[in-house]
Amino acid sequence: MYVILVYDVGEQRVSKMLKLCRQYLNWIQNSVFEGEITETKLLELVIRAKQIIVKERDSIILFKSREDRWLQKEVIGMEKNKLDTII
Amino acid sequence: MYVILVYDVGEQRVSKMLKLCRQYLNWIQNSVFEGEITETKLLELVIRAKQIIVKERDSIILFKSREDRWLQKEVIGMEKNKLDTII
Repeated sequence: MYVILVYDVGEQRVSKMLKLCRQYLNWIQNSVFEGEITETKLLELVIRAKQIIVKERDSIILFKSREDRWLQKEVIGMEKNKLDTII
Repeated sequence: MYVILVYDVGEQRVSKMLKLCRQYLNWIQNSVFEGEITETKLLELVIRAKQIIVKERDSIILFKSREDRWLQKEVIGMEKNKLDTII
């Protein structure tokens, strides 16, 4: 399954979320991740994410697609994850 | 066409981008928008966005899908756009 994940969490929880999501998906921008993931792994990620977020304040949005070819990606401006691989 | 747009722009350009994107798409989280849009309107949005961003620093990512039913959305935590309609 192909997934886009975006999160909006309190500053104190950003680094934890970043670290968690990086274990499952590819970082593509600020708080945006994408990648191929199995149902099981995604469930694991969601369970772990729920332990980090404060559900009254933070939010995570998942867009799931059975196939990544159904989604066409376009980047305008700087492609941040290129930098990421350099660091 | 169904579109997810995420942007990461310098603080000074955030309010301009927010205002612009709101004219074309639905705000769903921080710097994340989604919605149905025509090719023409999307092109218009991209052209106007390019006038706002500093392309060496900022980035906009577009995920385009021919049909929204190919994408399943799941929100974990707080659904921010619900608040948005109240304000």
